[in-house]
Amino acid sequence: MDNQYLQTINGDLWLTEDERENLKISYRIKEVLFSKQSPFQHVMVLDSYDFGRMLVLDGVVQTTSIDGHIYNEMISHIPLNLHPNPEKVLIIGGGDCGVAREVCKYDSVKEIDMVEIDELVVSACKEHLPEVSGNLSDPRVNFLFIDGVKYVENKQNEYDVIIVDSSDPIGPAEQLFSKDFYTNLYKALKDDGLMVCQSQSPVFHLDVLKRSYSHIQSLFPITKLYTAVVPTYPGGLWSFTIGSKKYEDVKSDNFSKDTKYVNQAILEGCFKLPEFLQQALK
Amino acid sequence: MDNQYLQTINGDLWLTEDERENLKISYRIKEVLFSKQSPFQHVMVLDSYDFGRMLVLDGVVQTTSIDGHIYNEMISHIPLNLHPNPEKVLIIGGGDCGVAREVCKYDSVKEIDMVEIDELVVSACKEHLPEVSGNLSDPRVNFLFIDGVKYVENKQNEYDVIIVDSSDPIGPAEQLFSKDFYTNLYKALKDDGLMVCQSQSPVFHLDVLKRSYSHIQSLFPITKLYTAVVPTYPGGLWSFTIGSKKYEDVKSDNFSKDTKYVNQAILEGCFKLPEFLQQALK
Repeated sequence: MDNQYLQTINGDLWLTEDERENLKISYRIKEVLFSKQSPFQHVMVLDSYDFGRMLVLDGVVQTTSIDGHIYNEMISHIPLNLHPNPEKVLIIGGGDCGVAREVCKYDSVKEIDMVEIDELVVSACKEHLPEVSGNLSDPRVNFLFIDGVKYVENKQNEYDVIIVDSSDPIGPAEQLFSKDFYTNLYKALKDDGLMVCQSQSPVFHLDVLKRSYSHIQSLFPITKLYTAVVPTYPGGLWSFTIGSKKYEDVKSDNFSKDTKYVNQAILEGCFKLPEFLQQALK
Repeated sequence: MDNQYLQTINGDLWLTEDERENLKISYRIKEVLFSKQSPFQHVMVLDSYDFGRMLVLDGVVQTTSIDGHIYNEMISHIPLNLHPNPEKVLIIGGGDCGVAREVCKYDSVKEIDMVEIDELVVSACKEHLPEVSGNLSDPRVNFLFIDGVKYVENKQNEYDVIIVDSSDPIGPAEQLFSKDFYTNLYKALKDDGLMVCQSQSPVFHLDVLKRSYSHIQSLFPITKLYTAVVPTYPGGLWSFTIGSKKYEDVKSDNFSKDTKYVNQAILEGCFKLPEFLQQALK
């Protein structure tokens, strides 16, 4: 049962995230449901005591059944409520299928291209993490198991909304935070399109957030930052940045999708930033 | 240097919070600045790599120089902006002095009674945690090193605002979450007074939050819940509950205190609750 990421201590199984030099978080684990090396990373689905089932990539928790919906709802419903009529949506990353699941809740959406480099993440989540993936089987979702950075290089004027659901900007995901990549997203969007990306922790990675925000601000006429609380991410507070060619305000005044976190109050409140963040973006 | 809460691993000093059965958080420590047993608890001030200086009681991190201001600003400025003219304020707990420091920013406030059971916490924080305590020396603050539960038993019609800055509802702080205690707070408040308490994590202690909210709702005509993100508390998301005899809305439309987290946007946005919390309070 043990591998390099799991340890047995006094008969209990523990996963310890130790990518950070000065902070370690350990989760007590009930059961290893899936564990396999893909060409890109080590993929596990674990059942934990406090957070339910968890997707773990290279030993780092990515999403859990207890709070995965918060991140996935926030990165999906906010941009889809800024755009008045999203029909064609591109998701880059998002292998846990939670974003695609949320996007499928919009009848206006006709087509969803989901570009995820690692097919093993998708198959593992569909089978072992139904709380997040929803066993996704909507025919509007077109899976493409290729590199998202390469995919957008030659796209022009094609998408209404692009959602970048990346992991941390270390290793392969680093390019998903580069100005070249955002430039290609701008081109891939229609004249009134908009994009969103996760822009990391305002507490621990304010430098990444500011760089990413500044790249997007230099390309798009409208740039907006919003936050949510994701309990399993260090620091809890997480940021998302929107780059929009035309639409600026939330359209809905009576949000009523089937959600656990997002509602009309959150749609309006999520753009209200604490003072240190307002200062950091000046 | 080592004690029961600190361990040396490969030459590095670590504090591991292990009060939770299924989740352990370990902080790498630079230096132990203060470590002593009081009649009530074990008190440490540590200098950590990622969170700056930290107050640690019985091995559990209470506040840090990197994010202590968030909790202290949120539990102070929100009630002080609901009340139009707070003059006499009672703080129960709050030994790190951060709440008293924020309350002192209001010229309308003439008198602050600060009732903290453990004098050693106050002296340790004044000396070793100036980022949080501000080396508090405002003459309006009247320190009373006694039991807050007993203190409010015979108070009547005396305070404009009461702030309950308690630790978790385990052991001595348990009574600070009881209906008897809230009943005494109600009596200790003037006819237009209001109280606020921290009501724990909506993610991990929704039961405590709901019980506390329901007690307050049964006593006060107006009950309001608000949230903030405190990175060093497990789950990040934290809740506060207000019980008010008269005032319901934020008075200020141009908040301008010297703060790092609270601003006009947060004053308005903090009451906008995610869907699962709105449902839980129904």
